Amino acid sequence: MGFDPSERVVEIRARLEAFMDKHIFPREHEYEEFVTDQNNLWKTPPFVRDLRAKAREQGLWNLFLPEEYKPWSLGLTNVEIAHIFETMSRVTWAQTIFNCNAPDRGNMEVLAKYGSKEQQEKWLRPLLDGKIRSAYAMTEPQVASSDATNMELEIKRDGDEYVLNGRKWWTTGVVSPDCKIMLVMGKSNPENDRHTQHSTILVPTDTPGFKVERALKVFGGYHSPGGEGDSSFSDVRVPVENMIKGEGCGFEIAQGRLGPGRFQYAMTFVGLAQRCLELMCERATQRVAFGETLNAKTSVQHEIARSRCDIEQCRLLVLEAADKMDREGPNGAKEHISMVKIVGPRMAEKVASRAIQVFGGMGVSQDTLLPDVFNHARFCRIADGPDEVHMSQLGKLTIRRVLSELSNG
Amino acid sequence: MGFDPSERVVEIRARLEAFMDKHIFPREHEYEEFVTDQNNLWKTPPFVRDLRAKAREQGLWNLFLPEEYKPWSLGLTNVEIAHIFETMSRVTWAQTIFNCNAPDRGNMEVLAKYGSKEQQEKWLRPLLDGKIRSAYAMTEPQVASSDATNMELEIKRDGDEYVLNGRKWWTTGVVSPDCKIMLVMGKSNPENDRHTQHSTILVPTDTPGFKVERALKVFGGYHSPGGEGDSSFSDVRVPVENMIKGEGCGFEIAQGRLGPGRFQYAMTFVGLAQRCLELMCERATQRVAFGETLNAKTSVQHEIARSRCDIEQCRLLVLEAADKMDREGPNGAKEHISMVKIVGPRMAEKVASRAIQVFGGMGVSQDTLLPDVFNHARFCRIADGPDEVHMSQLGKLTIRRVLSELSNG
Amino acid sequence: MGFDPSERVVEIRARLEAFMDKHIFPREHEYEEFVTDQNNLWKTPPFVRDLRAKAREQGLWNLFLPEEYKPWSLGLTNVEIAHIFETMSRVTWAQTIFNCNAPDRGNMEVLAKYGSKEQQEKWLRPLLDGKIRSAYAMTEPQVASSDATNMELEIKRDGDEYVLNGRKWWTTGVVSPDCKIMLVMGKSNPENDRHTQHSTILVPTDTPGFKVERALKVFGGYHSPGGEGDSSFSDVRVPVENMIKGEGCGFEIAQGRLGPGRFQYAMTFVGLAQRCLELMCERATQRVAFGETLNAKTSVQHEIARSRCDIEQCRLLVLEAADKMDREGPNGAKEHISMVKIVGPRMAEKVASRAIQVFGGMGVSQDTLLPDVFNHARFCRIADGPDEVHMSQLGKLTIRRVLSELSNG
Amino acid sequence: MGFDPSERVVEIRARLEAFMDKHIFPREHEYEEFVTDQNNLWKTPPFVRDLRAKAREQGLWNLFLPEEYKPWSLGLTNVEIAHIFETMSRVTWAQTIFNCNAPDRGNMEVLAKYGSKEQQEKWLRPLLDGKIRSAYAMTEPQVASSDATNMELEIKRDGDEYVLNGRKWWTTGVVSPDCKIMLVMGKSNPENDRHTQHSTILVPTDTPGFKVERALKVFGGYHSPGGEGDSSFSDVRVPVENMIKGEGCGFEIAQGRLGPGRFQYAMTFVGLAQRCLELMCERATQRVAFGETLNAKTSVQHEIARSRCDIEQCRLLVLEAADKMDREGPNGAKEHISMVKIVGPRMAEKVASRAIQVFGGMGVSQDTLLPDVFNHARFCRIADGPDEVHMSQLGKLTIRRVLSELSNG
Repeated sequence: MGFDPSERVVEIRARLEAFMDKHIFPREHEYEEFVTDQNNLWKTPPFVRDLRAKAREQGLWNLFLPEEYKPWSLGLTNVEIAHIFETMSRVTWAQTIFNCNAPDRGNMEVLAKYGSKEQQEKWLRPLLDGKIRSAYAMTEPQVASSDATNMELEIKRDGDEYVLNGRKWWTTGVVSPDCKIMLVMGKSNPENDRHTQHSTILVPTDTPGFKVERALKVFGGYHSPGGEGDSSFSDVRVPVENMIKGEGCGFEIAQGRLGPGRFQYAMTFVGLAQRCLELMCERATQRVAFGETLNAKTSVQHEIARSRCDIEQCRLLVLEAADKMDREGPNGAKEHISMVKIVGPRMAEKVASRAIQVFGGMGVSQDTLLPDVFNHARFCRIADGPDEVHMSQLGKLTIRRVLSELSNG
Repeated sequence: MGFDPSERVVEIRARLEAFMDKHIFPREHEYEEFVTDQNNLWKTPPFVRDLRAKAREQGLWNLFLPEEYKPWSLGLTNVEIAHIFETMSRVTWAQTIFNCNAPDRGNMEVLAKYGSKEQQEKWLRPLLDGKIRSAYAMTEPQVASSDATNMELEIKRDGDEYVLNGRKWWTTGVVSPDCKIMLVMGKSNPENDRHTQHSTILVPTDTPGFKVERALKVFGGYHSPGGEGDSSFSDVRVPVENMIKGEGCGFEIAQGRLGPGRFQYAMTFVGLAQRCLELMCERATQRVAFGETLNAKTSVQHEIARSRCDIEQCRLLVLEAADKMDREGPNGAKEHISMVKIVGPRMAEKVASRAIQVFGGMGVSQDTLLPDVFNHARFCRIADGPDEVHMSQLGKLTIRRVLSELSNG
Repeated sequence: MGFDPSERVVEIRARLEAFMDKHIFPREHEYEEFVTDQNNLWKTPPFVRDLRAKAREQGLWNLFLPEEYKPWSLGLTNVEIAHIFETMSRVTWAQTIFNCNAPDRGNMEVLAKYGSKEQQEKWLRPLLDGKIRSAYAMTEPQVASSDATNMELEIKRDGDEYVLNGRKWWTTGVVSPDCKIMLVMGKSNPENDRHTQHSTILVPTDTPGFKVERALKVFGGYHSPGGEGDSSFSDVRVPVENMIKGEGCGFEIAQGRLGPGRFQYAMTFVGLAQRCLELMCERATQRVAFGETLNAKTSVQHEIARSRCDIEQCRLLVLEAADKMDREGPNGAKEHISMVKIVGPRMAEKVASRAIQVFGGMGVSQDTLLPDVFNHARFCRIADGPDEVHMSQLGKLTIRRVLSELSNG
Repeated sequence: MGFDPSERVVEIRARLEAFMDKHIFPREHEYEEFVTDQNNLWKTPPFVRDLRAKAREQGLWNLFLPEEYKPWSLGLTNVEIAHIFETMSRVTWAQTIFNCNAPDRGNMEVLAKYGSKEQQEKWLRPLLDGKIRSAYAMTEPQVASSDATNMELEIKRDGDEYVLNGRKWWTTGVVSPDCKIMLVMGKSNPENDRHTQHSTILVPTDTPGFKVERALKVFGGYHSPGGEGDSSFSDVRVPVENMIKGEGCGFEIAQGRLGPGRFQYAMTFVGLAQRCLELMCERATQRVAFGETLNAKTSVQHEIARSRCDIEQCRLLVLEAADKMDREGPNGAKEHISMVKIVGPRMAEKVASRAIQVFGGMGVSQDTLLPDVFNHARFCRIADGPDEVHMSQLGKLTIRRVLSELSNG
């Protein structure tokens, strides 16, 4: 009943928690120290490789692919995956250990769904094996990229090759030396109508003419080891076989990519916020100010209560979105996917912010994950399109639905 | 899967909607006009009696009692009842038509759960039949009544009678001439420990010594025909048989009364808010300002989107609370019941407020139900205890749960 | 220094406070009881006439007219008037006692500024003397009236008369039998450009063809004794002498009317909110819940602190707006007038809402002015144009100012 | 009238703006690049020294000291200083150029107010000359330091020396090699009553036994070149002459230090927020999304309007606080100082956040100062005591004031 975890999920989650307790939580601090040390820029902490190997051995690997992607997937439903993602997201970098991190998981999904056999063999296989990393290059600096039809990077056919020219930024992960392949969206067919002018094409990062011009900071920090790239494409040539699905399918692929990804993404915030809530509860119980522990203060009790209500509601919304996806597919889940995109980051930002206030100075320092969660959640109100764009879309869809129900009802 | 309505619910809801479309929506305005006309103070619009009779004939009656109260109940689960309440709550006074309104439904539940055979025969039966109305007298003006153990009205045994002295206010429904019986909470055993000092006793409204001193206004209006009473008890005598369950059980009964009631109450706000959202969508599509319909303005789209997200999350939370109640009983559902109490009214207040802004002047006038919803929701952030009390309690329960899970986990 | 009250203001305010302490505060409850009793609908409590006479005798009369309106005015600056309005606004109906209430004060200003000698003699004089009341009919139900150029009521010249046809609603005060004269805005010159198509014309309420069709409720209550009218104009004929200033000046007059009125209006909310804050502080000191007075709870302390900050900031903003008006006239004060319109009602709504939570049930009842303030402030987020319209305008003006300063700076 | 800038201010501000336009704005990016490059950790960009020299030559130096500190100060009033601080704060690091940055300015004030002739000669002079930097060590990790009476670092007299033992963190600036002197607060007289147990003593950073254990990050970044130190004191010995004012005066000094500092601090947020607003307006005018520039969208207009209202109100509040300080001294300004501490950071956080949404991805990158302002403002809701502590204090002071005024009024 409800969205209770299935037996399968209970079992996987137990193993996941054991793994995290043993291998991940104890290394939270070490990881943070490593990746924020500028001397390690774009390097992955050495223990990550070991942990990934261990996770794979234990079958805690590629858990993100829903059942339709068998044999590559474990055959879990989207609701099941959502539950697992909450658990996995309680540490900011744990998804990587289970090969479930963005943007790789979205890229693997694209390749599984739209890729040719050859593309799957050449790129999906090593991604699923965790041997390489990938990037998805969509956003461009000159245009409001929340409207995917705005993309201007040029993709021109020239014999057996496509030639790419243009600029992309906010390409997550591309700065890392482990990133070997990019899915690049660009305009290939300007003569077509608005939704079929674009294509998505595979571009190996070592292709001549491609250059990461600089790494973008996010709230002052590089997202090492992945990084956010600001890159140029100057006469970048790739064979025609690298085109995914076909010319003009870029917009369709961009849309399709956002399905399961969006609620996995939203569930990340539930996991992170739940962790913040736990830290806040512990701190409130220990810290004394003005003659009493913080948990005796009504203002602190209220902030904890608000956080509980916010998290619980968002969790249910994500589970419902996943359930819609399971039952009605991406189209039926469209409005719910907008909802979780809007609600998730904002919720985590608020919860982290409340926790910070309870912690005082320690709450903004490197001694907890709170500042990371706060800034990451804040960032995600921009990433994949600002809140406002999703709210406009959801507003319009809601009006349409309501009016149609009223006229039928 | 999820909290989807059962077949039973789908069927009942269809009949409910048909009934409402035919009999209730067309009379919304007439009802409002009647009850806010001071000449009709404390009178029920005549058509209400007819509609109640019709609803009863069609089996759309007493839908609020969960399965454990068979044979009185239809045997619905709490989740099923929650779904039905959303539908029923789209008009502010529709619950009355289906004999599902507060405070009668809570009082019936108390009598079904704790009442003696005789008490059930004498009072529950006519309530279930819709022949009389009832009240629950708990709140007192001198004390912060959100803590039920504060109640001071004195209940003293004198031979075969109990004698009551004290004052009660915010007794919903007691001003109506149809109100024949009260469940009164008072202090009978001051020598006991804090949670067993109080009793709940049945007091017919025509008992000598009881007097409604005045009706309280809520945001400037009388809640006619029910009304909120401010009453005195001066040597009010009732037979010992009127004691519910036994001396000292008052606090237990007060707690028990809040179970299903709380999420039915919260679902009321979901139904009302959904209605407001629908009105807002319609208006936004029709109204032109500064050269375009309101639905073309991003700020209006965003307000609709926010409302959609708020309503959907609250709906899920209430359904989950009901599900907890079905599976774990009132104790297991305790925290969820706090959550819906906190979230529901605040959510409806916000949604109604946004709808008002979209309507402009019409939105505060008698031409829509928006001002009623707004003020009712605002009132309910106080009724049954201010938000703050529930947040403090939920905060403490959350800390306890989190710390216990962390120490076990 | 700063916006400290001048000596004159200190003196007037002292007398005002003495008057209010003696005559107004003791009658708050009586007034409320009278005007909300449906049997008194549209009647003014008898003591109001006496108090107005007393106030006039003491020179506490027509304080709202800034110095430019000498000899009618006392010669106060707008900053001085703002200070006085705060004091006067601590009781919801006190402005009436001092003949400083809306809409009369705005109408008197229009007549003083734009009226002909004859118009002033015939209508301004009795208004200044408090012998009659007036109304300003602008808003229409069919159009978004926040854009004054939308007004559709037809004003057609026919010989020595103008003939009016159309509908107006939200005409404050028109339902009262004391209302003898209306300033009606309508479209007289459809052939002109957008800002000179309208005129404002004087229409006595007893003119044949004019009819108040119904009174509008505001959040469920009639604003008796003034009332909000929904009226029709059917071949209403008035002599050409009734035209104010001239054909096509309607928009100019509508704009001009909003100057001082707007910050007097905003200051009303400062006075009301300050009163709510005081009540909240008193209550918090007296009320015990869960073993301590409310003022010992950090959540209550914070709500009081937030209210203090909100009120103080709004007060300063209104004083600055008034100062701008004194020094730069309505055009220089334009943006500030938008700001106070946006900030004032929202601020008072929040403060009243916090006070309500501290009061519990009593806070929504007729025992305090809190529900009135809450609903009035909420209403005023719609009245004179919804917040959204003012925010759009202020947003655009701000962009213009910022870009121009940057290009000059 | 009002808080308009005096002629003196107009003149200084013109020179300040010219200096900033010429020397500071063009180097914003260069500065940022330098200080966030880990290779430059704790180094000051070389051009800073030159700019400071230039600023000093032009008399744009030590502008922060109010008139009472003549001859060291320029003799400006606090209101005048507030105006100048707004201008100066439009770039995050500009205060340093004018020797007006925290914590030096507060420390100089302490030395000017409480220091002995010798202390002033030895430490104040080089600080005023900009030759050294300083730190103020108050906060400790083990205790809630928002209550200064909690400080536990031990200061024990031993002959002609004091011996310090304990730990301090969040000591701003202490990590920089330029920091030569600390003002350390500790417990010297545990036998005294709560407010006279502490002392403030001067400790040169090269004193044996003192060690910066680590630098604290703030939202993931080091505040280089100043830095936030986490330090230990192990038998640190300083001569008795280093005691400021006398044993037991630590709490008084801590309080005194917060006077002018607090509204200079709050004005910083006004300057920063105004800058964010300007960027937001420019961006909104240039950026096209979904077929129109952002400034045509009502949601963007509203965010700009809200920001304008928030900034304007905060600015007035700070000016009023400064004016209170000028006229009534620190005690009279106490409540206003709490208010600006509460309002300032929260206001800037909101404005920066709105600007970020208008910028999209660029808004969180290193290409604007928005992320810095956002995180700095967020940090300052914790620094110098969390909002909650100040709200509790202001709440209590407000209750006291209101009740006293009511009983006198």
